[in-house]
Amino acid sequence: MRAVGIVGVGHTKFGRFTGSFLDMAASAAKEALDDAGVRPVTGHGIDQVFLASMGAGQVNKISGAASALVDTLNLRPAMAETVENGPASGASAVKLGYMAIASGLCDTVLVVGAEQMRVISGWEATDFVATMSHPEAEYPYGLTLPAFAGMFTRLYMDKYGVTEKDLAIVGVKNHENAMHNPVAHIKLVPNLYAITEDEDANVINPYVAEPLRVYHTCPVSDGAAALVLTALDSGREFNHKPVRIAGVGQATDTHVVAERREPTELFAVKESARRAYEMAGIGPEDIDVAELHDAFQILEIAESEEVGFFPKGTGHLAAREGKTRVDGEKPINTSGGLKAKGHPVGATGVSQVVEIVRQLRGEAGGRQVKGAKTGLTVNFGGFGNNVVSIVLTTRERG
Amino acid sequence: MRAVGIVGVGHTKFGRFTGSFLDMAASAAKEALDDAGVRPVTGHGIDQVFLASMGAGQVNKISGAASALVDTLNLRPAMAETVENGPASGASAVKLGYMAIASGLCDTVLVVGAEQMRVISGWEATDFVATMSHPEAEYPYGLTLPAFAGMFTRLYMDKYGVTEKDLAIVGVKNHENAMHNPVAHIKLVPNLYAITEDEDANVINPYVAEPLRVYHTCPVSDGAAALVLTALDSGREFNHKPVRIAGVGQATDTHVVAERREPTELFAVKESARRAYEMAGIGPEDIDVAELHDAFQILEIAESEEVGFFPKGTGHLAAREGKTRVDGEKPINTSGGLKAKGHPVGATGVSQVVEIVRQLRGEAGGRQVKGAKTGLTVNFGGFGNNVVSIVLTTRERG
Repeated sequence: MRAVGIVGVGHTKFGRFTGSFLDMAASAAKEALDDAGVRPVTGHGIDQVFLASMGAGQVNKISGAASALVDTLNLRPAMAETVENGPASGASAVKLGYMAIASGLCDTVLVVGAEQMRVISGWEATDFVATMSHPEAEYPYGLTLPAFAGMFTRLYMDKYGVTEKDLAIVGVKNHENAMHNPVAHIKLVPNLYAITEDEDANVINPYVAEPLRVYHTCPVSDGAAALVLTALDSGREFNHKPVRIAGVGQATDTHVVAERREPTELFAVKESARRAYEMAGIGPEDIDVAELHDAFQILEIAESEEVGFFPKGTGHLAAREGKTRVDGEKPINTSGGLKAKGHPVGATGVSQVVEIVRQLRGEAGGRQVKGAKTGLTVNFGGFGNNVVSIVLTTRERG
Repeated sequence: MRAVGIVGVGHTKFGRFTGSFLDMAASAAKEALDDAGVRPVTGHGIDQVFLASMGAGQVNKISGAASALVDTLNLRPAMAETVENGPASGASAVKLGYMAIASGLCDTVLVVGAEQMRVISGWEATDFVATMSHPEAEYPYGLTLPAFAGMFTRLYMDKYGVTEKDLAIVGVKNHENAMHNPVAHIKLVPNLYAITEDEDANVINPYVAEPLRVYHTCPVSDGAAALVLTALDSGREFNHKPVRIAGVGQATDTHVVAERREPTELFAVKESARRAYEMAGIGPEDIDVAELHDAFQILEIAESEEVGFFPKGTGHLAAREGKTRVDGEKPINTSGGLKAKGHPVGATGVSQVVEIVRQLRGEAGGRQVKGAKTGLTVNFGGFGNNVVSIVLTTRERG
């Protein structure tokens, strides 16, 4: 298979973006093109644009947004599609970029993830996100993603002894990491321990779906991230040595969460990671740094087990021991994760890859993992119904 | 490049579908799987599902619809993405299916296009379709697709002498073809000549955007279509000899129609067809049958010129002479086209390919083009801002 690498990255500051959806997507894209050394105006050589977004149509009422982006960036007549896979849209677009190049139809592809979630109100955002649940068996009954996560957290607490403090440990770690990430949404470290143990916890940090509290969930963010992918055999010169996409794995699970035999097992996370490792010819022991999908802290714990970093039921113990900190043995969410960097849903999968590229290039500043050569991203669609895992490396092909 | 063929086709009756969006998509998909001889329950072997839809999110409020479809069809853990490229979403999904297989990541892919447009009112449907115009430079000013088409028709009339009767000739031809197509939405042949020449034309067939009248446009339809794509070197056995995807071409044009130097030229149609021909190693003279994107009759005329069937400005003359009829030298829209078969936007590109496969298999009954070996589809996104052309053939690889 034709080898594919990443030669450019771009990322808006997550949080609130006051311009238009297209402005936001173009802003990240221009940064990635510039980072790669691609000049859009003169001989750009971008064959295809994939735009990942969950709400371009539903929230922003834009159809054909990818074509509009091509036009804004002056990349005509590049091919273009918008890709939607719930909150895993971003990694899906990276996968399609990989396929486009590996197929031989394209040499250089721009992948952009963009989501504008703060143009709607809080309850509208919760409703929008809930549209990723099953349209007939879940959504009409009022199930929201925090509700799923609340039930999942309770099961994990009962089965494995996870405590509220464990959730706080993961949250604080990610907030601390975000302090070193210029593009993170939240730049402060809330004292989640105090909040958790405080008698007034229900006032300061109320339940949104018991035992899940406000501070156990990610914020609602606007944001965009972008990548330039290229064939390693294209002979083109870029500003950066490529970070190779060594493995891409994806798997679907039952869409209806209640239909899973054991709801604490995230089959699609496990299977997508297994496929990505297999394609890369490596195992979890070879991963130096990982971005996992911590839309809720419990998911970082569960995913760290499913991808093979820690035995099932011990992810929270590893977090307690500091193993997942930047200086630990398996650094997770050095970017701040969805918890602190933010979670503009369609952008997240692309943003995760941006962070790993920065780590593997040694550009991560105060959150740099020393000597990182190989990284993993896990982008979680629905409540685990469609998950995409990607292995990136600066090591030579085995 | 790895060769890819189509071994299964499925198609709901276009018109009004009373079940859910998922039911509709699954109905076409099951027919395609059955046609191919793929048994979903036992060892299905579908690696990836691409679902094309422009309104799954915006109209139906479903995110991750492709994952839900995988689940409905019991195709887990197949990979899945929803693809959106306005009314060219369908052909984009076929292109992605081609890439997925050509890349070597997949052997067999299910491509489904689905749109449910009759769950919303007429003006809502017009508004929904208008979201494919430029979100900042066109949509906010109230431009709709019939408005674009009206202006385009006027320019064509002024420049090339196209008459209302020419539009009627195209329309009647397509309605006649649809009489032989069991899945067509409209099964009657309106006397468009009388309507055009009648003194009461403004009552019977009123202008929607002068000189464009109601009967010069396609209906609003629900519908779904599906294809099973496979690698020709996979060694798998299917019910049908594959129809090979010989060429896939795509191009974008300025998103804002007013920015085009010559608005009667459809650059993206011409360039996408050129690319598809080049990849297939053929020219327009080799095409035996074509499905063009006649959302408005004038587009069939203009596209028949841009793809190289007739010199620029003479498409209407070719139609007058009967050249585009089933028994003519360049049969166009044997299915009935968008005009009579219907135009569930995201489904159309897949539906066009289904028709060409039926033609090349010799299964087109009363609308069969004798001895057809090679066909072309043109799927038109926005008002020509993103167009996908596909060449299909039963001839051996050159």
